[in-house]
Amino acid sequence: MATSTLSIPALVRIKHGAIDRLGTYLARSGYRRIALLVSAGLLGGLEQRLGTGLEREGITVVRREDVDEASFERASALFAALPSGCDAVVGFGGGRALDVAKYVAFLAGLPYLAVPTSLSNDGFCSPQSSLTQGGHRRSLRATMPSGVIVDTDVCLQAPAPLWWSGVGDLVAKVTAITDWKLAFHARGTPVNDFAALLSDATVFQFMARPVKDLEGVRLLATALMLNGVAMEVAGSSRPASGSEHLLSHALDSVSARPRLHGLQVGVATYVVSRLQGQGTQRVASVLEATGFWQGIRADPFSRREWLDAVRLAPTLKEGFHTVLSSRDCVPEVADILKNDATLKDCFRD
Amino acid sequence: MATSTLSIPALVRIKHGAIDRLGTYLARSGYRRIALLVSAGLLGGLEQRLGTGLEREGITVVRREDVDEASFERASALFAALPSGCDAVVGFGGGRALDVAKYVAFLAGLPYLAVPTSLSNDGFCSPQSSLTQGGHRRSLRATMPSGVIVDTDVCLQAPAPLWWSGVGDLVAKVTAITDWKLAFHARGTPVNDFAALLSDATVFQFMARPVKDLEGVRLLATALMLNGVAMEVAGSSRPASGSEHLLSHALDSVSARPRLHGLQVGVATYVVSRLQGQGTQRVASVLEATGFWQGIRADPFSRREWLDAVRLAPTLKEGFHTVLSSRDCVPEVADILKNDATLKDCFRD
Amino acid sequence: MATSTLSIPALVRIKHGAIDRLGTYLARSGYRRIALLVSAGLLGGLEQRLGTGLEREGITVVRREDVDEASFERASALFAALPSGCDAVVGFGGGRALDVAKYVAFLAGLPYLAVPTSLSNDGFCSPQSSLTQGGHRRSLRATMPSGVIVDTDVCLQAPAPLWWSGVGDLVAKVTAITDWKLAFHARGTPVNDFAALLSDATVFQFMARPVKDLEGVRLLATALMLNGVAMEVAGSSRPASGSEHLLSHALDSVSARPRLHGLQVGVATYVVSRLQGQGTQRVASVLEATGFWQGIRADPFSRREWLDAVRLAPTLKEGFHTVLSSRDCVPEVADILKNDATLKDCFRD
Amino acid sequence: MATSTLSIPALVRIKHGAIDRLGTYLARSGYRRIALLVSAGLLGGLEQRLGTGLEREGITVVRREDVDEASFERASALFAALPSGCDAVVGFGGGRALDVAKYVAFLAGLPYLAVPTSLSNDGFCSPQSSLTQGGHRRSLRATMPSGVIVDTDVCLQAPAPLWWSGVGDLVAKVTAITDWKLAFHARGTPVNDFAALLSDATVFQFMARPVKDLEGVRLLATALMLNGVAMEVAGSSRPASGSEHLLSHALDSVSARPRLHGLQVGVATYVVSRLQGQGTQRVASVLEATGFWQGIRADPFSRREWLDAVRLAPTLKEGFHTVLSSRDCVPEVADILKNDATLKDCFRD
Repeated sequence: MATSTLSIPALVRIKHGAIDRLGTYLARSGYRRIALLVSAGLLGGLEQRLGTGLEREGITVVRREDVDEASFERASALFAALPSGCDAVVGFGGGRALDVAKYVAFLAGLPYLAVPTSLSNDGFCSPQSSLTQGGHRRSLRATMPSGVIVDTDVCLQAPAPLWWSGVGDLVAKVTAITDWKLAFHARGTPVNDFAALLSDATVFQFMARPVKDLEGVRLLATALMLNGVAMEVAGSSRPASGSEHLLSHALDSVSARPRLHGLQVGVATYVVSRLQGQGTQRVASVLEATGFWQGIRADPFSRREWLDAVRLAPTLKEGFHTVLSSRDCVPEVADILKNDATLKDCFRD
Repeated sequence: MATSTLSIPALVRIKHGAIDRLGTYLARSGYRRIALLVSAGLLGGLEQRLGTGLEREGITVVRREDVDEASFERASALFAALPSGCDAVVGFGGGRALDVAKYVAFLAGLPYLAVPTSLSNDGFCSPQSSLTQGGHRRSLRATMPSGVIVDTDVCLQAPAPLWWSGVGDLVAKVTAITDWKLAFHARGTPVNDFAALLSDATVFQFMARPVKDLEGVRLLATALMLNGVAMEVAGSSRPASGSEHLLSHALDSVSARPRLHGLQVGVATYVVSRLQGQGTQRVASVLEATGFWQGIRADPFSRREWLDAVRLAPTLKEGFHTVLSSRDCVPEVADILKNDATLKDCFRD
Repeated sequence: MATSTLSIPALVRIKHGAIDRLGTYLARSGYRRIALLVSAGLLGGLEQRLGTGLEREGITVVRREDVDEASFERASALFAALPSGCDAVVGFGGGRALDVAKYVAFLAGLPYLAVPTSLSNDGFCSPQSSLTQGGHRRSLRATMPSGVIVDTDVCLQAPAPLWWSGVGDLVAKVTAITDWKLAFHARGTPVNDFAALLSDATVFQFMARPVKDLEGVRLLATALMLNGVAMEVAGSSRPASGSEHLLSHALDSVSARPRLHGLQVGVATYVVSRLQGQGTQRVASVLEATGFWQGIRADPFSRREWLDAVRLAPTLKEGFHTVLSSRDCVPEVADILKNDATLKDCFRD
Repeated sequence: MATSTLSIPALVRIKHGAIDRLGTYLARSGYRRIALLVSAGLLGGLEQRLGTGLEREGITVVRREDVDEASFERASALFAALPSGCDAVVGFGGGRALDVAKYVAFLAGLPYLAVPTSLSNDGFCSPQSSLTQGGHRRSLRATMPSGVIVDTDVCLQAPAPLWWSGVGDLVAKVTAITDWKLAFHARGTPVNDFAALLSDATVFQFMARPVKDLEGVRLLATALMLNGVAMEVAGSSRPASGSEHLLSHALDSVSARPRLHGLQVGVATYVVSRLQGQGTQRVASVLEATGFWQGIRADPFSRREWLDAVRLAPTLKEGFHTVLSSRDCVPEVADILKNDATLKDCFRD
């Protein structure tokens, strides 16, 4: 076969009022009986709007579950209890519910529809689920969603830190691509140019109009969705995740109080771009334009925890070369955290 | 099947010096014997550079042909004469050579590699070939390229009008998407949201940095390539081509001296965006930033021919609804061509 | 999409001495580090032969486990403990080890290679795994194997009941197809004609030469493999499994001492063909020619248990119409078990 | 990708009365406007039956053409003249009409439905079209049909030589597979074991019941269809065509009066199996059981022409190793044609 084939969602709607119309989208696709997995604590009004649309189209919810824990064990139990005659699995809410729903659908061999209520990371359209198994966080192979339904108004109303988190996960692509190329030169890790170009393009796309409004939410959602596709093209998370993600994973281990994934990743991206010696201006301008830094300054990070994380990060993923594997980066990072003007007030001692 | 599958090039290289390394790329893909179809009149130095790389890697050119005519008949004859034992077909040069090479590869069932020397349109990575058949221009079904190799330096050296033409073909996506949505509302033409979002994203991506340098060529090439993929996703040219393309096709018929595809399309995009009442600012800013208008002003269009084209355009493609089908647009266009400040000096009587 | 696409094993070897050459096949496919899951109690000599071939080609077994229980829980635990850097999962031995190995590979997203040492059923090349979950037997969605390696000599040496079991699972296709067509007429269950014809063809193929020798093993293995493909085409087990399988599942519940899957299925196929009023001659001739009946007569079934099973069977699978759903079949079966000449000595009171 | 993917017809109907129901099948698939290409000289009653069914379902025939010449040029002209808004291309009749229709559909990128009225060869479900180009016969890459509709009663009524021809094309798989394996050993030609096993299975499947009645037509049609799929799996004609086909092609060149493809191929298969030293009994028994030989004896071949063909055959297809390339086979064939008891009265001087 001389071309590559890849899977993309057959149904995509990124628009105002999309959750009210989910019933219509499901009915058109021939899905009449669904399992609905919802983020625990989701604002009640949202689920009611979804439900109204389902009822109007005669869609039956054969099982409805709250999800508050993103684990392989929880997903397996939900799968075991899935009633027969279910046409599709719908995940509704935040990242955890969506990761679990995606995995249940994968185990059951059913179509999966992602209905995120915020854009805090690129997981809503990726072929993996981030779940714990036996208490350890893993990125497990799942399948691409069959449908991605993003209500831009709902996502616009989501708390500001979730928006910043999504922006942080987006700019990460700049350093992830650079790390990928470093890994090619250092260890021969194969780079898929199409995936790298697509991933890179998503940052430029958002850069052209980094504004938090309905159109901005549409652009961010599109960018994050295309990042998921880039991972599918590459067959790995490389186009979306490099040392900045390792740093965030390390922070999850060493921090007294870990922050939102994308907040950690966004700052790490800036820091890592300094280590890589390229892309810093591009990253900074997007973070600046979106008000990202003010979110960080409102609750600064611990400098000490970050330096611990820089020590831990390169050991986390075997065979995964990044700029952090190329040399001892601790002294440089210490200097950056202390003296970089852009990071002023983002760190405390 | 709950997700859609699509074909993308397995090999993509968009970088400085790529044509010198074509031999390496072919050898790695296991292609040892190729047919090479070259634009008639291509600068000799370029083919020599390509040839040096092929020789170094021991790639045999089993057939080498000049192409000066993009017709089904020419492609059929080349296919009939293709030697056995050929592993791949390489198209090298401008749009005509690439369209013919793509079609020969399609007929032969061989992998096709596109090596454009300019970026004057999005045909280098689309699943169609624009060929005449019996003297009539048609967009014929072909296959996606297996490889896209863009030497950014070579494309940067190409004459300015070819660059402007590529920019014009890119901004066309703005009005093409709007026309697609109009066609959905007017006639139920199905819209593929993924394709529409991808196509739209490509314009934003280029907008973020519309500069003619190596990086700008990389961004334009990526944008045009992703447009080709959007057509593959949609299974039609809708995400890339709307009324602005109809206008350009009409101009090809009515003009005493038709201009480059993308020059006509770019201006038509601006005019059509005015008719559609949206996107004008976005289109104008890209065309402004890239110096597109100065290319037009150097050789203005005929206002009369354009008005003739506006009359002809909506009749060209049966069942293809656009803004031009929605009302008699001639008076509006006459006014725009005469009074729009952006178009000053772009038209003569 | 106008044609259907389906997955088939990329690597197939059905020949004498294949297990000695597994290392060679793996090496050619680029798999250097494998997990090896082996039937508990497999004849030691076989694993040694396999191991010799692996060593010769420098294949590393990064994990080797005995499998004696075919459960979701066991497969999940093996998946959780799978070392990183594993290229493929190999299942070696009988049905349980193969079903577990297939599921581990599915969870891990790794290629799976099936190396059966007997041909007792068609599971070695199907897209499902038969596993218990929470103690209940289920047919879980998995993936088609990437490789099927059948050593015809090894399978020829397997105990006779395993051969008869495979033959029994093969003739089941006759009644399964008839049930499928009944379900279409009774309830509109969609029939995939290609899958039905392929499945039907496999029985005829084996009928032409139902002999237990190397060539016969090759034909049986091919037939069972093509049945797996028929299930993949159909997207369900319908082309391979109908009321005769329901009867066997019911026997597993009601019997004091259930027998081999294919022994139960083979007899059930004969009985069900009588109820369906067609195919009896074809089924009988294959079972006769292969000595199947002598295997049954050596250890007759309980007539009472079978009648209990006939009562239970139609309730086992919701929405799955078969001849057993069409009427109360108990009196007819009672008569058949008692008076059918072919079944003489196959049942005791 | 660890498994292979292949295309198969999405719609298959092999049954009594299928041509009367073509309209129903088309309507269910959503094809409303078709191009219909019909064998010149087809019995009028058949087309009328087809037409009645189309009308009943409201299917519009947007173009209807007689086909009497299977050439690239004819197919290209039909493609150029195809009206817009055509949903599918239907080929109806014998091999020539079907090969042309398949190619028109390939050029147009439209679904193709094959409705053969006889089973004289395996071309109705293969991914190639046998066409002349510039007067030379070539096997051109096309696409698998989307639909295969075989009316078993219609095919049963077709003249006996067409039935024998189909049988001859089927037994050819025995020698084709042997030649493929010879080519692997002699020149490393890669063998796809799945395709080889599938192709081999089709002969055994038909052998089990080689009777000319409705059921026999169904079995032959299934066997020939699965051969087409085997070619699709292999990506070449190797599983269906070896030295026996070369001999037939050579006969087309050297004979004063070439016979039906499958009649030539069937006899050649028998002769070649003698040269290969295996399979002769299997081939002979199928040909015997179907009355094939009486068809040959009614109009014997010329021994001299056959010996000329044996000389010519190995030169016809570059790089295609068969038993005819392994040694000078002329003396052996001379002896076989003269003295083999099975061939008695099949040849004249």
